[in-house]
Amino acid sequence: MNHLVKNSFTRLASVISPYHFRPGVAHYYRFCSHFSGNNFEPESWKSMEGLVRCPANHVPLSPIVFLERAAKAYTDRTSLVYGCLKYTWAQTHERCLKLASALTQLGISPGDVVATLAPNVPAMYELHFAVPMAGAVLCTLNSRLDSAMISVLLSHSEAKIVFVDYQLLEIAQGALNLLTQKTDTKPPILVLIADSDGSSSTSPTICTSNTYEYESLLETGNCGFEIRRPRSEWDPISVNYTSGTTSRPKGVVYSHRGAYLNTLSTVLLHGIGSMPVYLWTVPMFHCNGWCLTWGVAAQGGTNICLRKVNPKYIFDNIVQYNVTHMGGAPTVLNMIVNSLVSDQRPLPRKVEIMTGGSPPPPQILFKMEELGFGVNHLYGLTETYGPGTYCSWKPEWDSLPSNERSKLKARQGVQHLGLEEVDIKDPVTMESVTPDGETVGEIMFRGNTVMSGYLKDLKATKEAFRGGWFRSGDLAVKHPDNYIEVKDRLKDIIISGGENISTVEVETIFFSHPAVLEAAVVARPDNHWGQTPCAFVKLKEGFDHLKAQDLIEFCRDNLPHYMAPRTVIFDDIPKTATGKIQKFILREKAKALGSLS
Amino acid sequence: MNHLVKNSFTRLASVISPYHFRPGVAHYYRFCSHFSGNNFEPESWKSMEGLVRCPANHVPLSPIVFLERAAKAYTDRTSLVYGCLKYTWAQTHERCLKLASALTQLGISPGDVVATLAPNVPAMYELHFAVPMAGAVLCTLNSRLDSAMISVLLSHSEAKIVFVDYQLLEIAQGALNLLTQKTDTKPPILVLIADSDGSSSTSPTICTSNTYEYESLLETGNCGFEIRRPRSEWDPISVNYTSGTTSRPKGVVYSHRGAYLNTLSTVLLHGIGSMPVYLWTVPMFHCNGWCLTWGVAAQGGTNICLRKVNPKYIFDNIVQYNVTHMGGAPTVLNMIVNSLVSDQRPLPRKVEIMTGGSPPPPQILFKMEELGFGVNHLYGLTETYGPGTYCSWKPEWDSLPSNERSKLKARQGVQHLGLEEVDIKDPVTMESVTPDGETVGEIMFRGNTVMSGYLKDLKATKEAFRGGWFRSGDLAVKHPDNYIEVKDRLKDIIISGGENISTVEVETIFFSHPAVLEAAVVARPDNHWGQTPCAFVKLKEGFDHLKAQDLIEFCRDNLPHYMAPRTVIFDDIPKTATGKIQKFILREKAKALGSLS
Repeated sequence: MNHLVKNSFTRLASVISPYHFRPGVAHYYRFCSHFSGNNFEPESWKSMEGLVRCPANHVPLSPIVFLERAAKAYTDRTSLVYGCLKYTWAQTHERCLKLASALTQLGISPGDVVATLAPNVPAMYELHFAVPMAGAVLCTLNSRLDSAMISVLLSHSEAKIVFVDYQLLEIAQGALNLLTQKTDTKPPILVLIADSDGSSSTSPTICTSNTYEYESLLETGNCGFEIRRPRSEWDPISVNYTSGTTSRPKGVVYSHRGAYLNTLSTVLLHGIGSMPVYLWTVPMFHCNGWCLTWGVAAQGGTNICLRKVNPKYIFDNIVQYNVTHMGGAPTVLNMIVNSLVSDQRPLPRKVEIMTGGSPPPPQILFKMEELGFGVNHLYGLTETYGPGTYCSWKPEWDSLPSNERSKLKARQGVQHLGLEEVDIKDPVTMESVTPDGETVGEIMFRGNTVMSGYLKDLKATKEAFRGGWFRSGDLAVKHPDNYIEVKDRLKDIIISGGENISTVEVETIFFSHPAVLEAAVVARPDNHWGQTPCAFVKLKEGFDHLKAQDLIEFCRDNLPHYMAPRTVIFDDIPKTATGKIQKFILREKAKALGSLS
Repeated sequence: MNHLVKNSFTRLASVISPYHFRPGVAHYYRFCSHFSGNNFEPESWKSMEGLVRCPANHVPLSPIVFLERAAKAYTDRTSLVYGCLKYTWAQTHERCLKLASALTQLGISPGDVVATLAPNVPAMYELHFAVPMAGAVLCTLNSRLDSAMISVLLSHSEAKIVFVDYQLLEIAQGALNLLTQKTDTKPPILVLIADSDGSSSTSPTICTSNTYEYESLLETGNCGFEIRRPRSEWDPISVNYTSGTTSRPKGVVYSHRGAYLNTLSTVLLHGIGSMPVYLWTVPMFHCNGWCLTWGVAAQGGTNICLRKVNPKYIFDNIVQYNVTHMGGAPTVLNMIVNSLVSDQRPLPRKVEIMTGGSPPPPQILFKMEELGFGVNHLYGLTETYGPGTYCSWKPEWDSLPSNERSKLKARQGVQHLGLEEVDIKDPVTMESVTPDGETVGEIMFRGNTVMSGYLKDLKATKEAFRGGWFRSGDLAVKHPDNYIEVKDRLKDIIISGGENISTVEVETIFFSHPAVLEAAVVARPDNHWGQTPCAFVKLKEGFDHLKAQDLIEFCRDNLPHYMAPRTVIFDDIPKTATGKIQKFILREKAKALGSLS
């Protein structure tokens, strides 16, 4: 035993050292006797004498600790795989420290927004830790957006830096050009993410002075960087723009506290044990990958990153890395079950797949299970950090006929452990609906894994939280066993391939066409995408020569492709006496056309 | 869609309802714009416009929600089994509401202490929810304490009620008599827990006016009781008196926040998935059953309650209920491996057993695994809500020889997910020790699952948190892979001729001897060496011929000579109720032997 320690022990009793705290946090940590009152954290706990709140027993909750712990507990285990690239948790930790350091060297201050525009490449994973470690707020933009929308979101979020995958460089530069034209504010710094799996030698040259390259930037950072921890667990960790259920995307703000709690809740509901192998088929830009960007670190797992999601890649990676868990919208499941047999591979073990976004159709469930997947169903919104409820499977359901099982599996189920309450309520009276499986009400959430609010939109925030509950805008019933089931959307949202499409946005494009008199967009069933937009259009006189395909092309030129309708019907638009379009009639008509395939 | 809701939606736009919050919490919930500043939760998060903190997105963390959720999600599943008695989660929820209601009818106010003196009977489980639901603080007294100590703890905690198992009634009444004699304060109300498994008809009559019977009391409660939720997640949920390995027990206070977080952390480290079957071999009075009283509810599991822990009951219950998880000090493991073959039963499946309190000796590990148990090892203190670190098992260790595996398994490992940091530090300089597996320092904890403090002992609290870390008093090394390994208690260490001797290391050698059932090593004064090791040993049956000198020789063959005991005493080993050896008693005995010369 070493001499130093032995001596220390001898000296221990006589040493009365002052309370010295960690640098950087001392300014807000004090012993309880010095705390001032606060409406939000009442000091009722001080009624018991002898208690203190200090750095030994209070630390703001944050997912950052998951990475630090992983670096200690799972040091040499593989953290991430991407093509030929492979890191350990010690390396990922060090890279994130360097990246966080580099961000501060670029001038990032606490609370600044750092945006990304990239698929599930390693840089996206690293940014989920590095940005919060720099005290900044991560804004992962949907990689399918067009330049116009990206410029709007960069401007709204006031992003100081945007990290861009090389394949999306043109779109990003288009957005930056628009920003420069429209405003006189300095556009964000662009950091280019070259392909890091080594399989590509394309390193596009970009010539502006305000541009960096990801790996070179990271190399300028210091791995001894002192993490800028949240001062409060309420500090924002990320802003996630809703994908457009209304015409105006909203910036949903997540806190460190909510992210920590939703991470553990999702890990538990997904049954993710120690050291999982997680295949990234859920976009990391979607609710921070349902919080599993942080969750895989929490459990010391291995992230299998995929630039593109296609059946061959999915099966190959599952077999090669012995994947245990993955996730995805029903579109991903659809893609798997409809894949070429030549692309399929026998699974080395049961792969647990969590699906969300819309209920998985029965046929897809059967086929997935035949292929060896265990499918589970979760539900949530961007505003609930992604996963909020899940269809917790009851063992007694195992013995039911398969059509009943798939009906049950399509339920959105019960709240996870991080939420206080999920209920179906009459949105005016706030009364809970009868749990009879028939009475419809609005799904409402309450708890620590509900967003902090909409960025710079206090009015929308207050509206969403009216009555002390988060109002989801989704309509549902509650079954007698308390499991909820979504029936419809309050708004006329279209869900296509897991993405929400605002009909208002599509209609706006139609209205910008010189030939269009009236337009209304509703969902049409689609075998592959679930739904696609179907437009009903009344043309102005003298434009009878125009074809449906012309308008579809026009939309594709002016919208992200997934938002463009696949069907255009020239017809009269049914309206109420007051002139409001009766969309429920159009939805029936679209349904009568049958599924697209 | 029902008419009501449809109408409601039509009306929705025109309704501007005031922000109405839940009764009882409105007085401290306000929108952020009204919050006053606070040193502890800095309002840095308000730098982003549009964010609010309100009942929709902020609820004090509390394990109470686990029971409420279990009643909804696992309604008809079995919550608890005890002999012929069986409840569902709906029933347990209702009973806890009634019991909480009854407590308030007895005059319990928020912050009052409610004590228990009982083994792992159903009432103990229910009190873990009902007491916090009444806003009160649960104080589970060690059921092996004597009247004198119980009267001290009842007095110190100022308990208003004490729930007493019928088998411990005499001890409790003795304590109450002492209380009445010594003080003029009103003694606590006594609530008698009769045996509730129906197998016993003994319902002892007690005649004081200040006495109730558990089931009758519960029946007076109202199942529509409105839960008195914590006003702050820092509110105390329980006080746990340390088990007395030192002579003066301290009241360790847990908060709702810490209990919530340690519950999830323990569930995760123990690999407790959905709907486990948990056998209660850990006393619920010990760190609230390592927080798994709350944890079994969180995962919708089934509690198998045991009044007495013995090998036959353990095996019978495992087989009858298909137990998945259990826990216990090495004493429990010892009891299992040394049980009569006639009491043993083949396990229906692998039972995961988490052991803690002291490292499991290798021979016990082997035998447990032979019997079909999966043994994992955790470490913590009452001050860390029980589990704090665990020996997270690395798959690559599977292929090592069994003696190496058991050495590795005896490590205390790494922090769980609820802690910020566990480190081995020089207690004076607060420098981290070199992770070389040799340099000894003190184990220190920092994070949200560290106690709020010692009840009414601010001096001891501050001493324990000196330097911003909780000082465990345990000595350990850190291995190069960051796993920690306890060497000894700070006060148990023997200093012999200037050399530090870890008593744990010496005890390990004793346990490797085929004749030794139990062993404990303490310091004996020595005129020449200052101190030398003195071993207290209990032999297995049939080894009475063994002499002290034989064991001393055995130690000298297997240890550096200075570490081998100079004294071996064959005697019973005094233990706390949780199986921890009371070394302070042995030290007194060793001292009474006089100095060696």
